[in-house]
Amino acid sequence: MTVPADFQSWVHSRQTRIESVLETVLAAPDIAPQRLHQAMRYAVLGAGKRVRPLLAFAAGELSGADEERVGIAAAAVECIHAYSLVHDDLPCMDDDVLRRGRPTCHVEYDEPTALLVGDALQSLAFQLLSEYRLANEPARQLEMVKLLAVAAGSRGMAGGQAIDLESVGKALSMPELEFMHIHKTGALIRAAILLGLRCGDELDNRALGRIDSYAKCIGLAFQVVDDVLDAQGSTATLGKTAGKDAEQNKPTYVSTMGVAESRAFAEDLRLQALAALEGFGDRALRLRQLADFIVLRKF
Amino acid sequence: MTVPADFQSWVHSRQTRIESVLETVLAAPDIAPQRLHQAMRYAVLGAGKRVRPLLAFAAGELSGADEERVGIAAAAVECIHAYSLVHDDLPCMDDDVLRRGRPTCHVEYDEPTALLVGDALQSLAFQLLSEYRLANEPARQLEMVKLLAVAAGSRGMAGGQAIDLESVGKALSMPELEFMHIHKTGALIRAAILLGLRCGDELDNRALGRIDSYAKCIGLAFQVVDDVLDAQGSTATLGKTAGKDAEQNKPTYVSTMGVAESRAFAEDLRLQALAALEGFGDRALRLRQLADFIVLRKF
Repeated sequence: MTVPADFQSWVHSRQTRIESVLETVLAAPDIAPQRLHQAMRYAVLGAGKRVRPLLAFAAGELSGADEERVGIAAAAVECIHAYSLVHDDLPCMDDDVLRRGRPTCHVEYDEPTALLVGDALQSLAFQLLSEYRLANEPARQLEMVKLLAVAAGSRGMAGGQAIDLESVGKALSMPELEFMHIHKTGALIRAAILLGLRCGDELDNRALGRIDSYAKCIGLAFQVVDDVLDAQGSTATLGKTAGKDAEQNKPTYVSTMGVAESRAFAEDLRLQALAALEGFGDRALRLRQLADFIVLRKF
Repeated sequence: MTVPADFQSWVHSRQTRIESVLETVLAAPDIAPQRLHQAMRYAVLGAGKRVRPLLAFAAGELSGADEERVGIAAAAVECIHAYSLVHDDLPCMDDDVLRRGRPTCHVEYDEPTALLVGDALQSLAFQLLSEYRLANEPARQLEMVKLLAVAAGSRGMAGGQAIDLESVGKALSMPELEFMHIHKTGALIRAAILLGLRCGDELDNRALGRIDSYAKCIGLAFQVVDDVLDAQGSTATLGKTAGKDAEQNKPTYVSTMGVAESRAFAEDLRLQALAALEGFGDRALRLRQLADFIVLRKF
């Protein structure tokens, strides 16, 4: 994969920005309760590809959104994502010790602290979406709160996790696997894109529908590629335990359709995502580049 | 304690109403993922004194709020409360098997499901506060979202839990104990009252300040009485494991100041709470009666 130099520097600048926003919105490590605040910072800061924030920024560019606003919305999504990783890694879930190249939160701190870190990060996400002015109309901003709440909840990400739990050791059909991943990963990725978009000018329903198609394709493609990387990557490259899906006997795209077909499916989703962006011109440049980046990435 | 007959029927009618709201807003047990939705209903429905919803309804009466609106706001607070109980009871926290007279969520279902139940209930709370129209101005409703997010987060309830964890086996000073409980229990009780209030007419700052004083006194009094009941009550009466604080070597009001002084402290807080309501007339009747109920209760 050849990443255009200009895209690389865009990614870098947005990663720097989201890091700085997260650094600011997380409570300082010396504020009581200190250990909890330190653990929250550990779970969120200084690691992660920040794919969801990048998508939010790219969508914000399409709708002409103020970058400060998108930064806060992106931070809210990243708090939800970070909380889900902390809870996923707990002994009663995936029981993992390595995340983003470092000990997982409950290993570095302890289990009860990690539980509270996740809980408090979720609250923080909704605090961010309500504390700052992110949309011109407060009513529109309330819709943003609802969008994230639904994406995170029992009919979104948490629901996807529950389906994941139930499916261990089972062979899923393709539609079942897709249903699981649309919830588990897709919902939050879609929320990142739609929240970034909603920080800017309102789009008509047709345009919104196209971005939503892009978002759904990318959300699913991200997971398909994740499955391929989990099966083929090394722990060192991934920064998390590789081969975990097979070891835990979890149905994945790779276990269901094999590596070659999974790659082809991801490529198909990438092309669908790009097709949905036709007609948006330069405003959709970063969304296009991110579609390439997400599907063609090696880590 | 003699409860006025009229108050008893008010409590009963509001408990019936909040039960019906919760029943409606929780996803039906046959909606996928079924097991998660069933466990969420198990954790929330058909049990609990509904103290926080009662306080929300009482505060809503003071500000002339629409009862439908207060019902949703109260349900949001109760979802946060229910999630906190489910997570508190997990093996890595208090490791408790009995709650509200029934097996705890992770005993009835399993640990990972209980973790997700708590996570999804928190999301649901914020969905409720953003999905329905609860205030005349959307901007005011956004403030309600923020109020609950802060009350639930690292500088509210979750923060109180973290301080609780750190204090096991320690003797706390009175100010430290108060700091812990203001966060752990007080923050959400205060949020219940202020959210109920904000569903109605706007009050001036002086009136708001007085209700806030009431809320803070009642939040603390509730915990002091809880500590006394934990030390003196029976498991059968409480519907949860009695004597847990002492067994887990947790500092409480009873361990710090003894039973008699704790009772006197609670009574003092009740009188302060009632004093804060002076001048509100009949509109504050239910808040007054709830102050009596909370401090003089036997379970």
